[in-house]
Amino acid sequence: MTNKPLTEPQKKQSDSIVDTVLSGQHGKHSFQTVYTYIHTRIQRGDWQAHAKLPSVRQLAEDTGMHRLTIFKAYQHLKDDGHVYARDKSGYYVQPPTLQVLTNEAELGLPLFQGNLGDLHRIQVKYQFSQALITPNLLPNHYFAEYVKQVFDLYPKLLGTYAPAQGDLELREMLQHYFTDTSQFHVHADEILITTGAQQAISLIAEVWIRPGDHVLIESPAYASALDVFQQKGARLVPMTINANGYDLAQIEQAMKQYKPRFFYLNPTFHNPTGICISAEQRKQLVDLAAQYHCLLIEDDTCQDIYFGQKPPLPLFAYDTEGYTIYIRSFSKYVSPGLRIACIVARPEWFTSLLAAKSLADGGTPLLNQKVFLHYFTSTRLQQHIEKLRIALRIRFEMMDEELSSTGWYYEPPQGGFNLWVRLPDHLSVPELLARCLKQSISFVPGSLFDHHESSKQYIRLCFSFASEQEIRTGIQQLVAIAKDMESNSSE
Amino acid sequence: MTNKPLTEPQKKQSDSIVDTVLSGQHGKHSFQTVYTYIHTRIQRGDWQAHAKLPSVRQLAEDTGMHRLTIFKAYQHLKDDGHVYARDKSGYYVQPPTLQVLTNEAELGLPLFQGNLGDLHRIQVKYQFSQALITPNLLPNHYFAEYVKQVFDLYPKLLGTYAPAQGDLELREMLQHYFTDTSQFHVHADEILITTGAQQAISLIAEVWIRPGDHVLIESPAYASALDVFQQKGARLVPMTINANGYDLAQIEQAMKQYKPRFFYLNPTFHNPTGICISAEQRKQLVDLAAQYHCLLIEDDTCQDIYFGQKPPLPLFAYDTEGYTIYIRSFSKYVSPGLRIACIVARPEWFTSLLAAKSLADGGTPLLNQKVFLHYFTSTRLQQHIEKLRIALRIRFEMMDEELSSTGWYYEPPQGGFNLWVRLPDHLSVPELLARCLKQSISFVPGSLFDHHESSKQYIRLCFSFASEQEIRTGIQQLVAIAKDMESNSSE
Repeated sequence: MTNKPLTEPQKKQSDSIVDTVLSGQHGKHSFQTVYTYIHTRIQRGDWQAHAKLPSVRQLAEDTGMHRLTIFKAYQHLKDDGHVYARDKSGYYVQPPTLQVLTNEAELGLPLFQGNLGDLHRIQVKYQFSQALITPNLLPNHYFAEYVKQVFDLYPKLLGTYAPAQGDLELREMLQHYFTDTSQFHVHADEILITTGAQQAISLIAEVWIRPGDHVLIESPAYASALDVFQQKGARLVPMTINANGYDLAQIEQAMKQYKPRFFYLNPTFHNPTGICISAEQRKQLVDLAAQYHCLLIEDDTCQDIYFGQKPPLPLFAYDTEGYTIYIRSFSKYVSPGLRIACIVARPEWFTSLLAAKSLADGGTPLLNQKVFLHYFTSTRLQQHIEKLRIALRIRFEMMDEELSSTGWYYEPPQGGFNLWVRLPDHLSVPELLARCLKQSISFVPGSLFDHHESSKQYIRLCFSFASEQEIRTGIQQLVAIAKDMESNSSE
Repeated sequence: MTNKPLTEPQKKQSDSIVDTVLSGQHGKHSFQTVYTYIHTRIQRGDWQAHAKLPSVRQLAEDTGMHRLTIFKAYQHLKDDGHVYARDKSGYYVQPPTLQVLTNEAELGLPLFQGNLGDLHRIQVKYQFSQALITPNLLPNHYFAEYVKQVFDLYPKLLGTYAPAQGDLELREMLQHYFTDTSQFHVHADEILITTGAQQAISLIAEVWIRPGDHVLIESPAYASALDVFQQKGARLVPMTINANGYDLAQIEQAMKQYKPRFFYLNPTFHNPTGICISAEQRKQLVDLAAQYHCLLIEDDTCQDIYFGQKPPLPLFAYDTEGYTIYIRSFSKYVSPGLRIACIVARPEWFTSLLAAKSLADGGTPLLNQKVFLHYFTSTRLQQHIEKLRIALRIRFEMMDEELSSTGWYYEPPQGGFNLWVRLPDHLSVPELLARCLKQSISFVPGSLFDHHESSKQYIRLCFSFASEQEIRTGIQQLVAIAKDMESNSSE
């Protein structure tokens, strides 16, 4: 190769970034110089799809610029969909997708290419993508008063570490709470306090998943959990969930065939579909788990967020054989700023989880646990949850009303935060999202909950974050955009 | 085997726990029945050293007892050193060690057999084992007042999630703080907030260690970090640290030979030895790291806990090549109840760490970050740190005074929380610990910081937790016990 005479195009490929930088507008916006340099070379094909790009270190050395400047340029290139990053390995050229090529030209606007986290970072006026409760629905002032009282109770609170398993007083409270509300017969020793449900999922993955292990998941499923399992090298086997609940024959077949490490599931007001699995299926599922020695990891966030009747008891309450590990999160509706969740597991599973928690962070901060304990058990909070249910139900009904003219299909949820809406086949979800984002409206396309085609015509609309007025206006606009797309396509 | 006629001993081996339970004192203390059953069978040799014991599930099924009862029996058997647990695999017979056999008989008291965590769980009056600052030395009331003010500043604090990287306001404060105090030129984008240093260590291990990788550690070293590295499958290569600092030739040789993933080190008032590495060695070390492309993981907990002169700048400040990743913890001396620490890393290392943090828990709770931010920057806290240094120095001097009659060797530390004391060769450290624990005095035997023989004659005495009076009385008693042992052995 090196002996060949340089032809004109090859000469171009050897363009130096040093020249570019020296000739360019060095200074405050120097990252843009780097951005332009890399983008131009990708555009003209010097670097092909999936080619490894020069390292941050290398470019910093070549240009004498700070590494952070180069890094910033790569971050912008990534945000704009020109490059992608691979952990510890560097940056690569993002191949243009067919969708981008066709739609960008047609629409004159870029399609959203990122993951759930990327979508959540986009600031919009009409927020239907994040399944969070707006802080306006939480009793903030009351909470602030409460924290002050907790300090009076425990004057040395901030000078003390919590045990790795969690504060005993809190675990004993939860023991009684579960007995009273969920008919669990559980001991405080079987409860582990975690920093949010995300940490609970991460610890379980750390303990049970080895590369190549099979894990059953729901299809569609909560994306952040799947990221954790995949990062540990799990092979994910999707199990259908729909208005009929699970397909138990499919689950039995998968347990038999794959001997999975566990089935991660969210049976109560499932995210994203809002489905609530019947008591009958819950019983059958724990029987299957015992028969095939397959752990059930039950992620339960919405147990308290029901609109009419209480949901059936958690799987854990039906499980006499001890194959269920129960994750209960209180973050979303009690206090996102505290991040309190817990894992309930029988002794034979518990030791490994506790060891993993000790290594992970040595224990959730005591401040958060004590504040949660006293706040959660206060009469006022329990009254607040009553009000919250009503407020969420009203928001759901408003969204339902605004969508009524569309004829789009969805099961009205009996609890939770989301509507899982099937769009007509001729409506392009990526295009709808692109148009909505441009008008400051966000939702989550179904494809982000699923690697399969089956969810690609769905969207998740969250009704717990936007205000009532925002729901009215935002959904009206979304529907208008969809109608506009339909009338254009039928022309 | 099954066709052989049962001889008497074999018949005994088939003793059923069901018979034992039925004949025993079933009821409130039924775990003791299970304990006695298993202990007896181990004692008489039915189950040999390292034999797998019946599972919790199996025994629960056989006896009809609750699994928790069986579990409790195993926990007590484990605490008493009769069995050991292996994650996910069950319980095994603990082989009796020579020490136990000889010393238990001689002393009439059990030797301590556990790890650092087990030792810390023992409640004693004279606490010289945990390297913590007593809550009495922290400004608790002031802190409580402060938290109330923080809620006035951010009324919706508890309704809000923090970003995974950490609160931007806090990271910007730390950026300026590092520039002012440690001459770091670092950007807020290069700072990741973690829940304590333990999480920082855990994330770094998650990102960089694959099973079989070599990791350089100090010898002796902070035990909880080593547990994390070993759990990830690292091969630990110990590097000497002593009054002369590091042996740079040894480190260079190890970097060359093993191509380690990183060197985990604690150069400022090192735990357990209290040694502070010179500026000269710090410079040489960052040069070696760059030369051999070996990351340095600098764990810095005691930067602010100096008795006289400030320590040299962190390695990170000397490192122009970007091979240092800096962990700074504020938990111990600012507020253990908050658990705020951070990782500072250059962009090329940062992306992977942030991804690991997102998967691990999605972000440290916002409450803790905002409280820390305002508390840490208050004039009053900075004045408090001044007083804390004096208080710790006084406690060190008291301990020093009480040990002066012994002639035991130790380097007087210039900061930190610990004294690393070499006992005379003829003094048995396990026996001293056993005798001290019996008199409600605790310290950490050197062997827990080291898998090698070199630290077995050392003990770590922490002077930051006990009160001044407890230091006087406790150390006097410890010295008396040692003198008694010496006079007995010379008889």
